[in-house]
Amino acid sequence: MLQTPPTRFAYLGPEGTFAEAALSSAVPPGEGVRQPVASVPAALAAVRAGEADAALVPFENSVEGSVPTTMDGLADGDPLVVVREVFLTVAFVLAARPGTALADVRTVVSHPHALAQTARTVAGLLPDVPALPASSTAVAARAVADGEYDAAVCAPIAAERYGLVPLAEDVADHPGAVTRFVLVSRPGALPEPTGNDKTSLVVVVADRTGALLDVLREFTVRGISLTRIESRPIRDRLWVYSFSLDCEGHVAEARVGEALAALHRVSEDVRFLGSYPRADGRTNRPVPGEAADAAFTEAGSWLARLRAGEV
Amino acid sequence: MLQTPPTRFAYLGPEGTFAEAALSSAVPPGEGVRQPVASVPAALAAVRAGEADAALVPFENSVEGSVPTTMDGLADGDPLVVVREVFLTVAFVLAARPGTALADVRTVVSHPHALAQTARTVAGLLPDVPALPASSTAVAARAVADGEYDAAVCAPIAAERYGLVPLAEDVADHPGAVTRFVLVSRPGALPEPTGNDKTSLVVVVADRTGALLDVLREFTVRGISLTRIESRPIRDRLWVYSFSLDCEGHVAEARVGEALAALHRVSEDVRFLGSYPRADGRTNRPVPGEAADAAFTEAGSWLARLRAGEV
Amino acid sequence: MLQTPPTRFAYLGPEGTFAEAALSSAVPPGEGVRQPVASVPAALAAVRAGEADAALVPFENSVEGSVPTTMDGLADGDPLVVVREVFLTVAFVLAARPGTALADVRTVVSHPHALAQTARTVAGLLPDVPALPASSTAVAARAVADGEYDAAVCAPIAAERYGLVPLAEDVADHPGAVTRFVLVSRPGALPEPTGNDKTSLVVVVADRTGALLDVLREFTVRGISLTRIESRPIRDRLWVYSFSLDCEGHVAEARVGEALAALHRVSEDVRFLGSYPRADGRTNRPVPGEAADAAFTEAGSWLARLRAGEV
Amino acid sequence: MLQTPPTRFAYLGPEGTFAEAALSSAVPPGEGVRQPVASVPAALAAVRAGEADAALVPFENSVEGSVPTTMDGLADGDPLVVVREVFLTVAFVLAARPGTALADVRTVVSHPHALAQTARTVAGLLPDVPALPASSTAVAARAVADGEYDAAVCAPIAAERYGLVPLAEDVADHPGAVTRFVLVSRPGALPEPTGNDKTSLVVVVADRTGALLDVLREFTVRGISLTRIESRPIRDRLWVYSFSLDCEGHVAEARVGEALAALHRVSEDVRFLGSYPRADGRTNRPVPGEAADAAFTEAGSWLARLRAGEV
Repeated sequence: MLQTPPTRFAYLGPEGTFAEAALSSAVPPGEGVRQPVASVPAALAAVRAGEADAALVPFENSVEGSVPTTMDGLADGDPLVVVREVFLTVAFVLAARPGTALADVRTVVSHPHALAQTARTVAGLLPDVPALPASSTAVAARAVADGEYDAAVCAPIAAERYGLVPLAEDVADHPGAVTRFVLVSRPGALPEPTGNDKTSLVVVVADRTGALLDVLREFTVRGISLTRIESRPIRDRLWVYSFSLDCEGHVAEARVGEALAALHRVSEDVRFLGSYPRADGRTNRPVPGEAADAAFTEAGSWLARLRAGEV
Repeated sequence: MLQTPPTRFAYLGPEGTFAEAALSSAVPPGEGVRQPVASVPAALAAVRAGEADAALVPFENSVEGSVPTTMDGLADGDPLVVVREVFLTVAFVLAARPGTALADVRTVVSHPHALAQTARTVAGLLPDVPALPASSTAVAARAVADGEYDAAVCAPIAAERYGLVPLAEDVADHPGAVTRFVLVSRPGALPEPTGNDKTSLVVVVADRTGALLDVLREFTVRGISLTRIESRPIRDRLWVYSFSLDCEGHVAEARVGEALAALHRVSEDVRFLGSYPRADGRTNRPVPGEAADAAFTEAGSWLARLRAGEV
Repeated sequence: MLQTPPTRFAYLGPEGTFAEAALSSAVPPGEGVRQPVASVPAALAAVRAGEADAALVPFENSVEGSVPTTMDGLADGDPLVVVREVFLTVAFVLAARPGTALADVRTVVSHPHALAQTARTVAGLLPDVPALPASSTAVAARAVADGEYDAAVCAPIAAERYGLVPLAEDVADHPGAVTRFVLVSRPGALPEPTGNDKTSLVVVVADRTGALLDVLREFTVRGISLTRIESRPIRDRLWVYSFSLDCEGHVAEARVGEALAALHRVSEDVRFLGSYPRADGRTNRPVPGEAADAAFTEAGSWLARLRAGEV
Repeated sequence: MLQTPPTRFAYLGPEGTFAEAALSSAVPPGEGVRQPVASVPAALAAVRAGEADAALVPFENSVEGSVPTTMDGLADGDPLVVVREVFLTVAFVLAARPGTALADVRTVVSHPHALAQTARTVAGLLPDVPALPASSTAVAARAVADGEYDAAVCAPIAAERYGLVPLAEDVADHPGAVTRFVLVSRPGALPEPTGNDKTSLVVVVADRTGALLDVLREFTVRGISLTRIESRPIRDRLWVYSFSLDCEGHVAEARVGEALAALHRVSEDVRFLGSYPRADGRTNRPVPGEAADAAFTEAGSWLARLRAGEV
């Protein structure tokens, strides 16, 4: 549990984005103050500067892949840690002002990515209607509310916020896209282990054959599974590689702690990005008996007795 | 060398995009026919359908990360292979119609990503000028040429194509972003090994602790370095993981061939995405003597003699 | 199958030793000519010189451990290969001339090792009878036949050969000791794979941390189990280590052949000591599907198609 | 340092054996009481029973290989630990009573192993003189002193003890054989780390492909080199394997301690056989910076801060 519950949240705005929806699913409505900010770097900077207690930003997307600005924003600068992850199904609606019928629509507007992800479906609903760009899906919804365009492709939360009604729901061409958001804060008391946690890291290694193998081995010998790995270029540093990865388990657990300490010893750098409850609806693999905390504790006692000449 | 040089190239359009610039750097001007297409999937589909001989699409970007539509487009569907990679520095210009001065600019337009990557610089040059979205940087340039807006943030090639002139060059807030494009074609004769090649793969493994370690081990035991790795979700298949990776070397070389054959045996699936000359300006690590083709040949002869009872 | 069945066998003598018994169990009585020799080096030298076609020598013993003269004799000098292994339970009898009763025995004689392994049992049968040394158990049996002593601790075959009768059988203090003998010959056509074979090797590696791990990895990545390993000093060569090992499988099988070829590439030296039917009464672990010959063949075809641009 | 210096030493007798010579080189003459015992098991039993404080027994020999009775005697039964290792060059002399000349010698006597290791040299010195067996080289020397035979092949210490004089020194056919002896005692305060120590272990693992690799990995990931490894059969337990091994370093050091604790967790059983100064005249490999105690300490502090939310 966080020592002091965050009360000031920054999120990737504007209002009505999926990030706001993700924040609402993570923090009960009415709790804390929420502030949209213009970009991921701005959200992280607000937390680092103490202007916000936590920021809700996108981390990766099942369609778009990882979000480099978040990855890089967490890997560089003052330390920040993930305290929560939130998975949100990206459901687009085609929304219009109340009273507008499909046949009335002469223009449709949205962020180009959203238009791309819904192109076929929208074209089926609105043949020959031009699709126009906006700087975000929320901006598009607001522009429709303002009467500039007839319909917007946007998040349900944006339609609701701007008083629009859906002409069609789930208009994504490939439904089921999921975005993983993370809630990050300055280092502080870690979330309590729940038995179903993940830990995120960035590991920097010298550029030699087998370097990544050596990193992975530190997890495997301790019975820890990875759930994500990605090599990342490092700006301004030749001959080193960086890996962004998530593993199962919590740093408070012995196997994860020992693995991190080992990586701290053997790699160029390890940045801890947090241990937090797993929220993708899946359950960590069972921890093998020999990798459980009890086994580490017992082995530590055995070693102590052995060093004391009692075995 | 390709058996028949491709003569019909598809590229991620519209005209004037960075993809067109990348294609120009890969294929001398005047060679082949070039066709812009609306999306990465459309470009790949054109090659698969035989409507194009090769497609030039973005693969990863040092700012935006990997391009999921390309990753997924190559991993699924009929086989395609990379025959060439092209690295292009993403240089934005602020462009206007001839005769327009900075002081005359009342509106600036571009793709939202380009606006985001140049926001600070453009705001310094054009304080209080509204930045408006377009569906691509090339579309923005054309709209300026058509007189709809005063200035565009776009690629130099787009400015040139639409008769614009630069008001400012290199307007990216963080200059030096590089995009890696790939030229893909249907399987056919592979590019000749050059001694400085890369090989791209997708490997699908069962979801168990240590599975990735086992994959990497097949490279490391044969002295092969990886240059990129990324775990990828697999649509519709639970309990398996997919890794997209690049390694040094060419499949025609013994160590790479044996590693791929081993992965073919031990993994759920391996998809070969091509062996092609390395083009990022870096040189592969020296191949250790024991991993060179000569060592494999000699070891093969030794084994044959031994099986024949001659050793 | 051996090209020409060996007809002249050397074995570690004198007549009546366990080695002769092992040879009899490996080669039907009446087949070939059998020649006892004074030592393991002499037996191996006879084969190398062409004076014998094969030699039967002890390799390791469940009580005494490996037999260094055999290990070293195979590791150095002209190549020899194991074509057969034989396991023999070392059963000692207390033997005397016909007509001798236990109460008549005033002296007992044997090789000191045999006396040590039977000390308690013999002392129970013959309290206060002095145990005297001989240079082999067979020599002891002959000396009893010659009337020099009253009883010998020897192999059943020695008692039989010298016309003695057992006063007591199975007089080992810890029954069940097993000696593994090997039949070695000059390189030639290998024994046919039987599906339950072992392969013996000596691998020499540079003396660096992890060198042995790298050797074992070549087996593990190809699904091969080891059944014995032993580090061995190397005379006259500093900074290198030697490992003597047995693995499951036959060099004619793809996974074993590829592993040996890999070791040939990456180690200082590999000496092949033969592939031969497993004879310890145990069955090799099932070969995982991905390590079977069929999988290697299929993967090789896949690789060939891929290199030809057909995938 | 031992809590109480051992004062009662058992050694593999009889008086005049190489074991007594090894004990003399390990413990200054005049220190403690020394008791020859009949066998390795008897020596170990004396320590276990508290009848002796330490036992000096042979561990391995460069000609004969490891000594199974010592290996097994340490692996089974109540715990014992090695507190010292001693390397002794096995130098044989041909010894006779004072006044005997080579030409006077009509019989030569020794343990059969010693006769075998000196056969060629002795035959050159004493052509046609029969070589007769004794139950130990020391017994042979005593028999010569008693006038039963003319000359003995024995250790210099035995010649000296029984008042014999050498007719020839260094009569081994292959000079330079070295025996490694160990001084074992009941568990107690460990020898202090010296910076050049070895640690001995027995590790029991389930019988599955890759099990040994997993054991070795625990050493390699922590930068620890092995100096000896040997697979050992386990009496009465099917489907498990045992490995006897020595590694560089002292259990009081972090990397060795963590490796042992890990093996304790993941293997069927680990038996610690002691950490003691390396005495083979070689120096441990330099400990890599990341495996030194300081690196473990620093990593532990880093982990503690990270768990406390201070990083």
